[in-house]
Amino acid sequence: MNNQASLLPARERILLTAHDLFYRDGVRATGIDKVIADAGVTKVTFYRHFPSKNDLVCAFLDYRHERWMAWFVDALTRHGANEGRLTEAVVRAMREWFESEAFRGCAFINSVIELGGSLQDVIDISRQHKQSMTDVLAAHLPQEQQTAGLACAMAVAIDGAIIRAQYDQTPDAALAALALLLKSLAW
Amino acid sequence: MNNQASLLPARERILLTAHDLFYRDGVRATGIDKVIADAGVTKVTFYRHFPSKNDLVCAFLDYRHERWMAWFVDALTRHGANEGRLTEAVVRAMREWFESEAFRGCAFINSVIELGGSLQDVIDISRQHKQSMTDVLAAHLPQEQQTAGLACAMAVAIDGAIIRAQYDQTPDAALAALALLLKSLAW
Repeated sequence: MNNQASLLPARERILLTAHDLFYRDGVRATGIDKVIADAGVTKVTFYRHFPSKNDLVCAFLDYRHERWMAWFVDALTRHGANEGRLTEAVVRAMREWFESEAFRGCAFINSVIELGGSLQDVIDISRQHKQSMTDVLAAHLPQEQQTAGLACAMAVAIDGAIIRAQYDQTPDAALAALALLLKSLAW
Repeated sequence: MNNQASLLPARERILLTAHDLFYRDGVRATGIDKVIADAGVTKVTFYRHFPSKNDLVCAFLDYRHERWMAWFVDALTRHGANEGRLTEAVVRAMREWFESEAFRGCAFINSVIELGGSLQDVIDISRQHKQSMTDVLAAHLPQEQQTAGLACAMAVAIDGAIIRAQYDQTPDAALAALALLLKSLAW
């Protein structure tokens, strides 16, 4: 159990533990027993909160969504998106994320690929997440450019860069490609 | 065993069977016993060709690489890339792939996400694959535009579109975003 988790109520402790394990090692590679042991709860407590692994996976994605979106909105602001420099702010925010030690790509993309074929909820939650990211981008565009198409293209470019940063040993190529794509989308 | 596979030598039969199962269901979800049963070979024969599942995974990715690249080069030509309409040809080729019944995203992206943390070979093979895709794109650009950066940005946009097509029920949003990104990259 990590120090941050040990002070929380059981449900939050399980969720935080599952988040760290699922995101780091993947959902399929992480057994429920490992989550229970690391969270320091009993099996009875665990199953009272999460009757199945699928319940835990959906709760993990909801939790990740809240946490990632809060970071994204904050990072865009810190990197100057509100001053009309959206491209630079997006690229800098992504660099901050890609260079963080815990970076393992997008939890939603990863989960869709790991589980999407067997668990429709994962696809639905992940699409909602990407829609939220797209909405945040659209809100930063000049009003006359707030078309769904432009923000969606930005979101697709970001997803491509996330994947590339997962392959490469450094995020430089991913970020250079992202910067070129976003700058080329005139607005 | 599918009909196509039944006429092949054992190694190719195993590889084709593994390809179809790994690509459709994922590498982790597919047990070796299932591959052996579906390929119609004995365990002894299987392990003589592939001493471990990791050997089979790498052989699967090499095989997928050859097959996908051959399709990609052919599809770009069929869709007019050689007549200077690279953007249209890429988008049409991707539509052809995204709309095919067997489409489950990029086998390399999927494998990196499923296994990249535990198997460095998967990352290395996948990076080589993406480099080959990038090289094919670069070769179709006007000579004065054959910079690594432009083709790499195109490849990142394609990866983003592949991921989006995996989420969505139709590939239309992914293809619209890809078309907008590629058209915006002036050349």
